[in-house]
Amino acid sequence: MPDRADWIPAAAAKQPLFAGVDLGGTNIKVGLVDDDGRTLAFHTEPTLVGKGPDDVCRRMGAGVHTVAGMAGVAPAAIARVGLGTPGPQDLKAGTIIRAGNLPGFDGYPVREAVSRACGLPVTFANDATAAGYGEFWIGSAREFGSSVLLTLGTGIGGGIVIAGEPLEGAHSHGAECGHNLVDPSPEARVCPCGMPGHLEAYCSAKALLKRARQVLDLAPGGSLARAVAGGAELTPLLVSREAAAGDGVALDLILEVARWLGIGIVTLMHTVDPDAVLLGGAMTFGGEEHPVGRAFLERIRAEVKSRTFPLLAERTTIRFALLGGDAGYVGAAGIARLEHQRLARPAAG
Amino acid sequence: MPDRADWIPAAAAKQPLFAGVDLGGTNIKVGLVDDDGRTLAFHTEPTLVGKGPDDVCRRMGAGVHTVAGMAGVAPAAIARVGLGTPGPQDLKAGTIIRAGNLPGFDGYPVREAVSRACGLPVTFANDATAAGYGEFWIGSAREFGSSVLLTLGTGIGGGIVIAGEPLEGAHSHGAECGHNLVDPSPEARVCPCGMPGHLEAYCSAKALLKRARQVLDLAPGGSLARAVAGGAELTPLLVSREAAAGDGVALDLILEVARWLGIGIVTLMHTVDPDAVLLGGAMTFGGEEHPVGRAFLERIRAEVKSRTFPLLAERTTIRFALLGGDAGYVGAAGIARLEHQRLARPAAG
Repeated sequence: MPDRADWIPAAAAKQPLFAGVDLGGTNIKVGLVDDDGRTLAFHTEPTLVGKGPDDVCRRMGAGVHTVAGMAGVAPAAIARVGLGTPGPQDLKAGTIIRAGNLPGFDGYPVREAVSRACGLPVTFANDATAAGYGEFWIGSAREFGSSVLLTLGTGIGGGIVIAGEPLEGAHSHGAECGHNLVDPSPEARVCPCGMPGHLEAYCSAKALLKRARQVLDLAPGGSLARAVAGGAELTPLLVSREAAAGDGVALDLILEVARWLGIGIVTLMHTVDPDAVLLGGAMTFGGEEHPVGRAFLERIRAEVKSRTFPLLAERTTIRFALLGGDAGYVGAAGIARLEHQRLARPAAG
Repeated sequence: MPDRADWIPAAAAKQPLFAGVDLGGTNIKVGLVDDDGRTLAFHTEPTLVGKGPDDVCRRMGAGVHTVAGMAGVAPAAIARVGLGTPGPQDLKAGTIIRAGNLPGFDGYPVREAVSRACGLPVTFANDATAAGYGEFWIGSAREFGSSVLLTLGTGIGGGIVIAGEPLEGAHSHGAECGHNLVDPSPEARVCPCGMPGHLEAYCSAKALLKRARQVLDLAPGGSLARAVAGGAELTPLLVSREAAAGDGVALDLILEVARWLGIGIVTLMHTVDPDAVLLGGAMTFGGEEHPVGRAFLERIRAEVKSRTFPLLAERTTIRFALLGGDAGYVGAAGIARLEHQRLARPAAG
């Protein structure tokens, strides 16, 4: 959640204003931002997906009015709303094709429903692409011309920005980097999507825990094994904590994730060749400030360096994302801003 | 070489005109094309790289004047020249960083030298990116909004076009897809670049021949083995010919290349999500017209289908490229045209 102390008053905002809505399986987040991406107001509430898509969309629309009210501006002062949702989507049609954690939304015209609910034009985006754009616009890649964000959470999402434009793809599947193939071998781990060898099967929180259970079943020594044997719940945080406390088994589990990430990142570098590769989400082990986060990042960089051209290893920035859970609404608002600017431009002769 | 019967007269050309220069280790190709990408004239000559970069660049510049003369137009009628060369390059600086088959060109200011030699502004591009743009503009992907070309030859090049723009990358390494990582295992084959597991180590002509020698060393039966034992030179064409004649060993070698290509293509689809993936170069086994080419393409499609989302498998076109050796000069001219249009546009307010 954005720090309220960082919010700017409406009088200081650069016009026009944009709202960003980030729809997740657990929470809806809505933010009002100005033309420089600075937040004026923020609102969050539980998605309560069981109430059905009509209700969820009505509340997303109401949330836009809520943040306008919090900032003391009329909803009509908002030039455009950006809506990010999980994929796969049909961005042109404005529908979610099939989202595992949003039952009832398959094929639902979510863009149109939110637009009707708030009375404003809505630009539709993939949530990871929105996060990637948020980091590009005002976050960890703000000084660059192109970037690739990998969001490491329960699953893995991707957001690619090239020459200032988010890459949506021809079939709304651009930057589905969690499903990039990193292991073609017959022994490859199976991704939650059902296919073998995808990055997500090696580097998501689920993948870490699955691998941890396999390793702990072999009954190694160490404090992670003892904690789990003593009844502690096996979570990425526990693995990270025990790694920080010096447990080699826990640290190896994390560094194995880093190795696979490095493998996936090399191919992204040789395809997109971005200025920066960013790592966000819960699976960043405390980030640069934390010894485990630092070891994780260093292992990724070392793996990349051993597998790419010296020039790219030297010049491509690999770092943690900055905006955390705010990247989605900020980026959705930013993508709405791009469409607003495009529509405002005179058509090419 | 473009069929002279397809050349259009200068009177039928749509203005402005562009020249495309394709610099290879063996030949220089120069074409004059109109605003619709139609060829007015074409010239080719040996590179004779031993004569040094000054001489080669002088002759590339002269080639531009040659095609203008062939078409009966003044060199000044050419709005801009596009120059494609092997990478890696520094596109902004206009230099080749290090090209294996162009000794003497390391760090040489090739863009400036060609521009001086022909007296025209020059846009600098990667040769595979130029070929990819040529196929996008008037070739196999001309009906699409985005495409990825893989050129399968001695090595493997890549050319990506997104929303009509060639992807150059932040460090001139965009679409270096031959170096995408397809096999992270310790047994991975080593790429000519020195790193293990890259696509080029599995799918180039060199890779096919290396693998064929390994297989033939195991002394299998079949007509390929007999031909080689009888003194025939092992070439991709021989492998293809024996596969067409019914030799299972030869066909398996080709289908193994197809399988690895499918693996590489899946990650390109999940990253870029293009409308079309195109396969060009010598390693296309006669293309769609030929039974081996068809089997090769079908095997690629089957591998992709087994590893991607049903929607992408259904909607992403995978086909052979159309322009052959002409794609490079056509695409270089097309990239020059893009820059010409950009410079002609009034700056955004």
